[in-house]
Amino acid sequence: MIAEILSTGDEVLSGAVVDTNAAFIADHLQRAGVRVSRHVCVGDDINDISSAVSEMGKRADIVVATGGLGPTMDDLMAAAAARAAKVSLEENKKARESVEAFFARFSRKMTRSDAKQAMLPKGAEPIINDAGTAPGFSMKISRALFFFLPGVPREMERMLLCSVIPRIKSDCLSGVSSSVNCRKVFSLFGLPEAEVNERIRDLEKVYDNLKFGMIARFPVIFIKLTAMGNDEPALNQSIDAAGRDVVKRLGKWIFSENGESMEEVVGRLLSRLPASLAIAESCTGGLIASRITDIAGSSNYFLFSAVTYSNQAKTGVLGIDPELIDRFGAVSEETAQAMAEGVRRLSGADYGLSASGIAGPGGGTDEKPVGTVCIGLASSNGTKSKKFWFPFGRRNANKRIFSEAALDFLRRELMAAGQAA
Amino acid sequence: MIAEILSTGDEVLSGAVVDTNAAFIADHLQRAGVRVSRHVCVGDDINDISSAVSEMGKRADIVVATGGLGPTMDDLMAAAAARAAKVSLEENKKARESVEAFFARFSRKMTRSDAKQAMLPKGAEPIINDAGTAPGFSMKISRALFFFLPGVPREMERMLLCSVIPRIKSDCLSGVSSSVNCRKVFSLFGLPEAEVNERIRDLEKVYDNLKFGMIARFPVIFIKLTAMGNDEPALNQSIDAAGRDVVKRLGKWIFSENGESMEEVVGRLLSRLPASLAIAESCTGGLIASRITDIAGSSNYFLFSAVTYSNQAKTGVLGIDPELIDRFGAVSEETAQAMAEGVRRLSGADYGLSASGIAGPGGGTDEKPVGTVCIGLASSNGTKSKKFWFPFGRRNANKRIFSEAALDFLRRELMAAGQAA
Repeated sequence: MIAEILSTGDEVLSGAVVDTNAAFIADHLQRAGVRVSRHVCVGDDINDISSAVSEMGKRADIVVATGGLGPTMDDLMAAAAARAAKVSLEENKKARESVEAFFARFSRKMTRSDAKQAMLPKGAEPIINDAGTAPGFSMKISRALFFFLPGVPREMERMLLCSVIPRIKSDCLSGVSSSVNCRKVFSLFGLPEAEVNERIRDLEKVYDNLKFGMIARFPVIFIKLTAMGNDEPALNQSIDAAGRDVVKRLGKWIFSENGESMEEVVGRLLSRLPASLAIAESCTGGLIASRITDIAGSSNYFLFSAVTYSNQAKTGVLGIDPELIDRFGAVSEETAQAMAEGVRRLSGADYGLSASGIAGPGGGTDEKPVGTVCIGLASSNGTKSKKFWFPFGRRNANKRIFSEAALDFLRRELMAAGQAA
Repeated sequence: MIAEILSTGDEVLSGAVVDTNAAFIADHLQRAGVRVSRHVCVGDDINDISSAVSEMGKRADIVVATGGLGPTMDDLMAAAAARAAKVSLEENKKARESVEAFFARFSRKMTRSDAKQAMLPKGAEPIINDAGTAPGFSMKISRALFFFLPGVPREMERMLLCSVIPRIKSDCLSGVSSSVNCRKVFSLFGLPEAEVNERIRDLEKVYDNLKFGMIARFPVIFIKLTAMGNDEPALNQSIDAAGRDVVKRLGKWIFSENGESMEEVVGRLLSRLPASLAIAESCTGGLIASRITDIAGSSNYFLFSAVTYSNQAKTGVLGIDPELIDRFGAVSEETAQAMAEGVRRLSGADYGLSASGIAGPGGGTDEKPVGTVCIGLASSNGTKSKKFWFPFGRRNANKRIFSEAALDFLRRELMAAGQAA
C-alpha cells in the first residue's frame, strides 16, 4: 500500500509558506501502516497540477492532495482533477448543501465565488468540511484513490483524521495483513556524523530486519531504528537488542532516547534533584536562557540569566575582577569560571552556568579562533570549566552549538549529581 | 526553460526536518529567470530516488537535487543517479582530491565512509564544496542538466550561488531572450492578515500587470509585488507606483522594504544614532537579547540583558521596589517601567527595554490572560510603557510575538529620535 502526497500553491512551491500539511499527512498515513513514497509540490497552474495528478494516479495506491479548493480564481484543483480523470465538472448537490449550510451557520451571504466550490469532477464524492467553506472530495483516478482536501491546516487536519484515515482503513487496508511500524530514536550531541556512522555501520548487517537512519539536525544527530512487519513482539525485541548495542557504543553522547530536546532533559534533571539554575552568557547572547525558558514550568528551577555582552557588564553586574579579564581575556576558562561563580552568588542558585566565546564573524585570533567557547559551571561541588572549538564558522551556527555544549556540560553534571544522591 | 527541484531524505519526506533548501533554490532560480514548475521529495530509498530522477530528466531542462551525498549508509544519491543514467559509479579523481583537501585543512583523518563521497556516476563533473566534505556533481540525464548538491543548507547555498547559477546562466540561458523579474517586498508587524488584505485588495485591479502576494510568516506579514516581462523600466515604474500606494495605506505597520528582520532594523537605527541598549526580560526569557545578538556587530550597541525570571532577580538585580511588584503585579506597566529604568541605570545604556508577560500555558488570570505582555522603554526622554494582548495561546508563539512587539516598540522610538536629531 503506497501513498503519495500532493501540495499545490505558488506560495508553497516558492517556499514562501512552509508546507506543514505534508508532514502532518505523512505522519498519520505512516501511523496507519501506509508507506509514503513521495511528496510532490506544484504551483497554481492547471497544466502542472493535472499532469502531476495523472502521474500519481498511475504510480500510487492512495494520494492525498491539498490546496486549490477555495473560492478564488487561482483555486484550480477541481478543474485539474477533472481534466486528469477525463470527466467534466458539475455542481454536486451534497457539496452545494454543505457550502450553503456553512454560510447559514454564520448568517453570511454566499457569493458566486463561493458557489464555485460546489463544482466537483463528475463521479467525485464530497468530503464535508465542518470548519470552512470548501468541501473536499475523493475519487478514483487510474489506479489510485485520491483525497482532495483544502490547504488550510485546521480544516485539512480535521478532515484527514475524521474522514480520510477511517476511509483508508476500511476501504484500502481491510483484508491487507496489518503491518505495524515500530521505532526507536536516539538523540546525540558532540560527535561528528561520519564518526557516529563508523561506530554503528556494522549493526545494519547484524540486524537486517531493521532500517537504520541517521538524521543530522544541527547540532544534534538522531539515530532512528525502524521495523515494519506483522510480528510486533519480535520487531520490538529486535529493536531493543539493537538499541542496547547502540547505547554500548555511543552512550556517552546520547542525551535522549525518547525525542526530548536538550533543554527538556536539563529541565527534567533539575526538577528531579531538585535544584535551581542561573546563567551568565556572553557570546550566546541570551540563547541558553531562551532555550531553558521554552519549557513550560521552567520558572520552577530557572531564576536568572545575566547576558553580559560588554566587559563592563561582566565586572559591574557579576563582580568579576577586571584584572582577571585583562590577564586571561574575556574568552578564557578563568573568566568563564568567574562568570559562573558570579551569577551563582548574585542569584543564590544551586548551579551557575556560563558561556564566553567568539561567535564570529569578527573577533577571532590565531590563539582563539572564531568557534572557540569556554563553558563554566559552579555549584556546591566547586567550579569547573572546559574549552571547546567548533569548525562551523557562521555566527548563528556557533551560537546554537555553544548553547548546546553549555547545556550538555550541565546535563552531565546533573546526571552525576543524581547518581550520587 | 523549466526547472524542477528534488529533495531527498526520510527526515524531509516525513516532515521531521523542514526543507528550507527547496525555497532557497526556487527563489534563486526564479531570480535568474528560470520557471520552477515542480518540487519533488522522496525518502532514502534508492528505487524511489532513481525513478524520480528518471522522470524529472524526461520532463525538465534543469534539475537541482539536494541531499544524500554524505558519508553514511543512507546517503544514496550518487548510486541512484548512476542507476537513472544507466552508468556505473567510479572514484572521481577531482572529487577525491577535494575530500582529501578538506580533511587536510582541519588535520582530521579521512575514514572509509568519507572516501565513499568521491564515488560519482561515470561522466559526472564534480562541484567543489568549500564548506564541507561532500562534493556535489553535475551531469546530463535524458534531456535535463542535473545539479546534485549536499543537503546541509550552508554548503548547498554556497555551491548554488557560486557554481550552479553561474553555470545555468552561461550554459542554459545565453541566447534565450531574457525575461526579467522585478519585485518589491514589504515586511509588516502588528495587523492581522485579513485586515492587511482588506486594505490593499483593490490595488490588484488597479495594477493588473503586477502579481500581489501576501505571505504570513508568524508574526510577520510580507506583501510581495512581482512583475515579469521584458520591459524592465516599465515594470519597475509600475512596482514603484503600487509600492507608494501600499505605504500610503499600511506605512504605520511596515518596518522594512528590503527584507531586513526587525532585529536588523533596530540594530541599524541604534548604530546610526548612535545609541546603546540594555534589556530586562521576564516572559521572553532571553529571546529579545538573543535576537539582537544574532546580528554581527551588535556588540557595538548592545551592552547587557537581565533575564529576571524570578521576582527576587527583579528586585535584587534590577533594584525594583518589592512593594511595587506586590501592588501592581509582575506583569504590569508599572513593573515593566521599573524594569526598563532599572536595567538602564545598572548598565548605563541610552535605552532600557523591558518585557514582562504571561507566555503560558499556566499563569493566566481573567484580568491578565495568557498572551498579555507589558513592554517598557526608558531613555533620556523619560519612560513609557504599553500593554498588549495576543490571542495565540502557545508558549513559543507568545515568546516570539512578545519579542517582536518589544523590538517594534523600540523601533518606533528610535525612528522618532532619528527624525528629531
